[in-house]
Amino acid sequence: MEALNAPLCWLDGRYLPLSEAAVPPDDLGLQRGYGIFDFLRVMGRVPLYMEDHLDRFYRSAERMYLDVPVGRDELRAIILRLAEVNALTVSGMRFLLTGGSSPDGYTISAPRLMVMHQPLNPPPAVWPEHGYKLYTHDFLRQMPEVKTIDYLMAIRLQPWLKAQGGDDILYRHDGWVTECPRANFFIIDQSDSVVTPMRNMLHGVTRLQIIQVARSIGLKVEERDLPLTEVLQAKEAFISSSTKRIIPVSRIDARSFNSSEVTRRLWEAMMAHETGWILSRSPD
Amino acid sequence: MEALNAPLCWLDGRYLPLSEAAVPPDDLGLQRGYGIFDFLRVMGRVPLYMEDHLDRFYRSAERMYLDVPVGRDELRAIILRLAEVNALTVSGMRFLLTGGSSPDGYTISAPRLMVMHQPLNPPPAVWPEHGYKLYTHDFLRQMPEVKTIDYLMAIRLQPWLKAQGGDDILYRHDGWVTECPRANFFIIDQSDSVVTPMRNMLHGVTRLQIIQVARSIGLKVEERDLPLTEVLQAKEAFISSSTKRIIPVSRIDARSFNSSEVTRRLWEAMMAHETGWILSRSPD
Repeated sequence: MEALNAPLCWLDGRYLPLSEAAVPPDDLGLQRGYGIFDFLRVMGRVPLYMEDHLDRFYRSAERMYLDVPVGRDELRAIILRLAEVNALTVSGMRFLLTGGSSPDGYTISAPRLMVMHQPLNPPPAVWPEHGYKLYTHDFLRQMPEVKTIDYLMAIRLQPWLKAQGGDDILYRHDGWVTECPRANFFIIDQSDSVVTPMRNMLHGVTRLQIIQVARSIGLKVEERDLPLTEVLQAKEAFISSSTKRIIPVSRIDARSFNSSEVTRRLWEAMMAHETGWILSRSPD
Repeated sequence: MEALNAPLCWLDGRYLPLSEAAVPPDDLGLQRGYGIFDFLRVMGRVPLYMEDHLDRFYRSAERMYLDVPVGRDELRAIILRLAEVNALTVSGMRFLLTGGSSPDGYTISAPRLMVMHQPLNPPPAVWPEHGYKLYTHDFLRQMPEVKTIDYLMAIRLQPWLKAQGGDDILYRHDGWVTECPRANFFIIDQSDSVVTPMRNMLHGVTRLQIIQVARSIGLKVEERDLPLTEVLQAKEAFISSSTKRIIPVSRIDARSFNSSEVTRRLWEAMMAHETGWILSRSPD
């Protein structure tokens, strides 16, 4: 198979250029917002932390009563083949599973799987000096521990976020901080411990790597409920995601964060960890 | 234009058979569950309560910061033309507006409008003797007053509903009853008043007609918050929707409802009202 102008994707059992892919309008993803997905970063031809993403994808599917039309070995093979054929430098692989075409527009019949592979802006290769400004919003996602396609609130809040010059939203609910719409949230507390929520949020693959790397460099990590009052008294704060790795936080609502010493150490350790991980899996 | 085997629909500016319609996978409806819609019943060639549905559709779009790519006059013309050309006996017209294709998979760029027209099982033409069994579930929809495509919880609960032989879900939250996923909810209380919630739920077009018809036949109507405790002590209960009109409720959780005298009077008045409404708008 040759590389084409449009990257190849996989839809309903076959490989085709993304520009030719199309979904029937009766799909429950489109009609009823019913679907789950996962997304991983591909560095060269190496899909980063692929098994963790596959774990979460099949877990999400099960929680939503969606049968994945291909087994895990086949999905892994599709991902590796797209990475090989499309040969992109830095890219994102998105596997989306919807309720599929439904005869009555409501009942799950045959879930539809789609694997899309597209170029991605790489995460910062040098320490990001300028942190993100976060603004908090009271909201608890439905099914927060499942990676559903429900980003209704996040997208609806974009004009509000832009109006005040914010970079991302930080969800809080009843005084507890949970996550950003597409990123996990951490603080460095006054005793230099890393603290991050552990429920009512999505368990990020990068989040898990960070916890392990933090412990490996001697930091204490606490996974627990995190009140907003404590967040506003923290020394540092940062967010994490597959596409961004670690981004320091410079502001949450009216509170500025001027320190990022521990976050920077963690970022450096994560860079080294990721490089090592990729090298250990590269074919050459 | 001739009638075709597959009913015509309207997508991205043109009429085409529904079987040929397809949406690019980068649509924000599919990727992020971002969209709104409305749905009306067409009797012969008469779209029922069309202006009320158009009101709500444009209101939903505005609340979600989605620009409708056609004006109200043009959308009305599309609906009437599809009703004319497809010439279905009883049918449903669904107008769906999604976030559209997005360059970054997150930002609204050009919303996508789709108008689909399909045959529909007509609502019961005789009084439905057997009422629905409802089972309550604690849930409050996000943006409950906007007709978004978010039916994640409703579809996820279908296996649970079927397992106990239920016909529909009744949402309650913190002890207050709100709505069914696709229907409004009413009780007839001990003094024969019609009581129905008025917030934290979708304002149904049929619901509004019922309120007016109920008053016209001398019933007292109260729109207010409705505690589950009061619902379980009611004389009668029923649900309403565009497709079902009025369906009596025979059970809510462990409580049976054996009476439906007032509901039946209301159903008869609604049948007459709907017939009158259609006749007054028919071209012949």
